[in-house]
Amino acid sequence: MNETKQTEARELLDLLELRQYPAFMRRIDEWNPVDAAEFLSELPCERLPMVFRLLKKDTAAEVFAEMEPEQQSVIIEGMTDREIGSMLDDLFVDDAVDMLEEMPAGIVKRIMKSATPETRAEINRFLAYPEDSAGSVMTSEFIDLKSEMTCQTAIEHIRQHGLDKETVYVAYVTDTARVLTGVVPLKSLLFADPLTKIGDIMNEDVIFGYTHDDREEVANTISHYDILALPIVDKEKRLVGLVTVDDALDVLETEATEDIEKMAAILPTDKPYMRTSVWETYKKRIPWLLLLMISATFTGAIITHYESAIGTYAILTVFFPMLMDTGGNAGGQSSVTIIRGLSLGEIELRDVLRVLWKEIRVAAICGLTLAAATFIKVMVIDFRFQRLTVLENGDVQNNLLIAAIICITVFCAIIVAKIVGTLLPIGAKRIGLDPAVMASPFITTIVDTVVLIIYFTIASNILHF
Amino acid sequence: MNETKQTEARELLDLLELRQYPAFMRRIDEWNPVDAAEFLSELPCERLPMVFRLLKKDTAAEVFAEMEPEQQSVIIEGMTDREIGSMLDDLFVDDAVDMLEEMPAGIVKRIMKSATPETRAEINRFLAYPEDSAGSVMTSEFIDLKSEMTCQTAIEHIRQHGLDKETVYVAYVTDTARVLTGVVPLKSLLFADPLTKIGDIMNEDVIFGYTHDDREEVANTISHYDILALPIVDKEKRLVGLVTVDDALDVLETEATEDIEKMAAILPTDKPYMRTSVWETYKKRIPWLLLLMISATFTGAIITHYESAIGTYAILTVFFPMLMDTGGNAGGQSSVTIIRGLSLGEIELRDVLRVLWKEIRVAAICGLTLAAATFIKVMVIDFRFQRLTVLENGDVQNNLLIAAIICITVFCAIIVAKIVGTLLPIGAKRIGLDPAVMASPFITTIVDTVVLIIYFTIASNILHF
Repeated sequence: MNETKQTEARELLDLLELRQYPAFMRRIDEWNPVDAAEFLSELPCERLPMVFRLLKKDTAAEVFAEMEPEQQSVIIEGMTDREIGSMLDDLFVDDAVDMLEEMPAGIVKRIMKSATPETRAEINRFLAYPEDSAGSVMTSEFIDLKSEMTCQTAIEHIRQHGLDKETVYVAYVTDTARVLTGVVPLKSLLFADPLTKIGDIMNEDVIFGYTHDDREEVANTISHYDILALPIVDKEKRLVGLVTVDDALDVLETEATEDIEKMAAILPTDKPYMRTSVWETYKKRIPWLLLLMISATFTGAIITHYESAIGTYAILTVFFPMLMDTGGNAGGQSSVTIIRGLSLGEIELRDVLRVLWKEIRVAAICGLTLAAATFIKVMVIDFRFQRLTVLENGDVQNNLLIAAIICITVFCAIIVAKIVGTLLPIGAKRIGLDPAVMASPFITTIVDTVVLIIYFTIASNILHF
Repeated sequence: MNETKQTEARELLDLLELRQYPAFMRRIDEWNPVDAAEFLSELPCERLPMVFRLLKKDTAAEVFAEMEPEQQSVIIEGMTDREIGSMLDDLFVDDAVDMLEEMPAGIVKRIMKSATPETRAEINRFLAYPEDSAGSVMTSEFIDLKSEMTCQTAIEHIRQHGLDKETVYVAYVTDTARVLTGVVPLKSLLFADPLTKIGDIMNEDVIFGYTHDDREEVANTISHYDILALPIVDKEKRLVGLVTVDDALDVLETEATEDIEKMAAILPTDKPYMRTSVWETYKKRIPWLLLLMISATFTGAIITHYESAIGTYAILTVFFPMLMDTGGNAGGQSSVTIIRGLSLGEIELRDVLRVLWKEIRVAAICGLTLAAATFIKVMVIDFRFQRLTVLENGDVQNNLLIAAIICITVFCAIIVAKIVGTLLPIGAKRIGLDPAVMASPFITTIVDTVVLIIYFTIASNILHF
């Protein structure tokens, strides 16, 4: 809500306080459903059902659909079975299904009992679509025309049946077997001669999706073709629903957030941050922290193996953080780029060799640059200013040796890190896992182990331990 | 392109090969502009201008708008000044501006010379809006009605002027001073009595944005209110343009990608991965790698300071990777959660204390869990099975001491990491920097330093070195 709305919200609260309900009803009715839902959400729970009853019947369902599950269940609990049934009729099926998926079992039972048999059947059909599928986000309220209609009859049809449709701006054409055959934007209907047949102006090159398609794929198609809605068909190509662009926006935003969370080693959640409890946040974060911590056993084991060498060459440990962080960062860059590319459809699985070859070349130049920078840094900053001691007698010869070990390790680390960062997300996608998990934290743990092995192998060969 | 389209694309190529141009023209004309642009993009550069000329005049501009800058400049170079001028007229202003922003100076000059004075003036006005502002992504082709019109005249007006508008599904109402006063969706026009006045059915509670608003903010508003377009006004609230939902989709996708790239220490790019050269990729990645590597000087300095102690207690280094990675992961979780929350508008700057308090509580439980897990792991796995040596005489007493040092450090590290991960993104936002930069790689470097300081301070106190 912006500031104007917040001032108005305070005035609305005053009206409620003074029990001036007719004035309140006139005012809230001018609000859009999103702001009205936000206003209601901030009311104390015990007043919510009463105030919700003040909404006009036709906007009530819209406002309800915009509310959070907690508030929805409070409102439902304050309703009679008849009121629930009538609101279910007013809700779009996809909104009703969204709500049911979040409700406690007891309330779901009561809602389903209150629904008409047709609504109940339709809701059950939608609930059966797999989570994250196009079927689970689509709506069944679409306008469906026949190719022999004229534009005039079509517009008349839309006038009569369009009011409770999710969008009236795109109509779909189906044949007698309900198979999708064409699409007509309302714009074409409006601009065409009223007596033209729909079949003559419809676009037969319809872009569509299947109910079992992934919702992210469907959203990407809507975004790619800049369309207002994507028709969804079943296996027999019969039109069963549509996904609108605003649903696509929500899906893409949710998927981006989920990817970002997974990349940061957090289990994804669909609740906004400020409404997630400390305990819930903890449960989303601790599994990966524990897993990654325990997998550090490998790095520990490697260092343990070289413990006596470290006793002699303690200087080697000075570069642990730099080597591991640089490896982790380089690997993270690759993995995150690839994960995002896969998710936007810019990178396909069949591109794996081209991607790998490119990453190796990028790694080679990055590795050379960083090795050169490391050399200068180690020789000038670390040895000159910090006066690192090299062995007991620390002569230049040994400085050069240490610098060489670090530089070679940095170069190898970058190459390995970028290869690991490329192959893990692509491999994950290949075997049907979510690539987003293969991001920085996971890569870092693996790269750390590999970098330490490289480091000690090179060091033990050069320093003979 | 899906498989059907790829088969059709091969057929189109055959038609071109056989010089069956009329057949080619009929076929490509049925394609939607996005697929047609993709088809043209795959042609060799020397054939592109010729094939582009085969497109119908009214679809040519749409296809052109969907193409990449490289292909656009090839096409422009093959055009006469008159052809350029006529295409500029057909392009939406925002598409023309997008194109000009990517063209080399020479071509821009030629294009601007070919434009009519009005188009030139309008393009210049759009070019003046700051990058990433609403003004830079809006279009000026909108339908604007007067409140005294009837619905019938309004629909007639849309029929006459709507063909070259970006959307005909939302119309805006302005007064004589061009100030925005209302919004009417085409749906309302269609469902209303033809003789109703626009003023009576328009919604005066218009959601709008300003030209200087950030484009991400505008896109978030469109997504929040599920609207098809957002009207954009100047400082005097005069209507100057609109941003459509498909532009909002692009903006949100680009911004999410940019955030993800910044979080992974990559300079953002707007080119798809497969079309970015090795050298460009290198330039986007090396700055942060170098910076982060050099900032590892701090961790190096700390270890150097304790070098002689490490000579004695080499076992301490075994836990370096585990401590630093766990700290980095914990800090990364917080920073990434907060960066995403800030970008979606779920977290506001004024929430800083609530967020911090929550993160500290989460950190405390995470810290306790990890400390307990560490204790078990160190005592059971590390000491039992790997037989780590503790000092020369390595008795149980000392095992417990080492385990205690690690556990206390883990706990403190998590607390500090989560505080740093919370405050840095919020602080960055506060001083006008992009919070996304304050993600895992940056946090890791800072947390590494702090964790090592904590580790050595605790160790030196317990082991007296």
